[in-house]
Amino acid sequence: MTQVPLLDQLIDALRCLPGVGQKTAQRMALQVLERNREGGRRLARVLGEAVERIGHCGRCRTLTEDPECAICRSGQRDDALLCVVETPSDLAAIETATGYRGRYFVMHGRLSPLDGLGPRELGLDELARRLDAGEVREMIIATNPTVEGEATAHYLAQLARGRGIRPSRLAHGVPLGGELEYIDRGTLAHAFGMRSEITD
Amino acid sequence: MTQVPLLDQLIDALRCLPGVGQKTAQRMALQVLERNREGGRRLARVLGEAVERIGHCGRCRTLTEDPECAICRSGQRDDALLCVVETPSDLAAIETATGYRGRYFVMHGRLSPLDGLGPRELGLDELARRLDAGEVREMIIATNPTVEGEATAHYLAQLARGRGIRPSRLAHGVPLGGELEYIDRGTLAHAFGMRSEITD
Repeated sequence: MTQVPLLDQLIDALRCLPGVGQKTAQRMALQVLERNREGGRRLARVLGEAVERIGHCGRCRTLTEDPECAICRSGQRDDALLCVVETPSDLAAIETATGYRGRYFVMHGRLSPLDGLGPRELGLDELARRLDAGEVREMIIATNPTVEGEATAHYLAQLARGRGIRPSRLAHGVPLGGELEYIDRGTLAHAFGMRSEITD
Repeated sequence: MTQVPLLDQLIDALRCLPGVGQKTAQRMALQVLERNREGGRRLARVLGEAVERIGHCGRCRTLTEDPECAICRSGQRDDALLCVVETPSDLAAIETATGYRGRYFVMHGRLSPLDGLGPRELGLDELARRLDAGEVREMIIATNPTVEGEATAHYLAQLARGRGIRPSRLAHGVPLGGELEYIDRGTLAHAFGMRSEITD
């Protein structure tokens, strides 16, 4: 038998997960086989189903197995607020951390002509149609504070302004609980420049 | 639709993996769905097959989908040497780190009466039969240096001696590259007591 043992195949397959190298994969494989086959069986089933069935929401483009995601279907959300994010992870982070009750739009990336990511790939024509529909009053641009993210934010802001919609973006500055000593210079300079008056 | 979204099911299922909490599971799920569906598909298939088909080697009890594992089937191994380990991970560690070319026996645990792990659960009757067969000359006891591991090593040593087989165990001491300052007192005391003469 020259076939690769199943255990080695499993260890290799586990390495598709982010942050999982050879050693972690081996520990995972052995732990599942030794102690938690039921969990492994369930993971295999759900993962198989997820990669086949999960697609993009027809409205906000986030990941969902339904034609529209739960947030887009919800009647409890404010249609006047639209938050544009780069990835579903960013959406999840905002949902977890904030009390935001508006809608979302997921670009699955940021403008990056060198990688072939233009407005069309990011679904910005869809976004424009949505803005044209007239319900959105404020577009919260929550791109990452990278060079490409900033360029994308600029593009998005123009898209909104051209339609009389107010663009806004997340505040930058010193993170809560952060220590000035350890904060990068750019952030500190920005926070210093954007200081606000203390009123009580 | 009150069903839990597939994405949430996937995040939850990923938590069966050791060291994977909510945040890591979310990152894994999104990364696989966004960037590596092919890897996810393969993992689902291999994992499903592994949990169903991988059992224990009929000879050494390690994990394998075959009736006997590759090491037991190999004609290149020395039948006179038998290394007894607690888990398949220990076997893998020894295979990776050392040039050992003998056989193995995997107990899947250590003697622990309170947990219901006695000689029978660890397959020590099988081990005894194997020792009775007369091929083994040296039994290398590679249990972990814990209280239960030591007790198990003691039991195994008696099993070997009673059959005229030489029991041996791994050397304990200061790890290579370790600094005396950071080594626990027990290890240091042991290494000090077991010091060997420098000869050249």
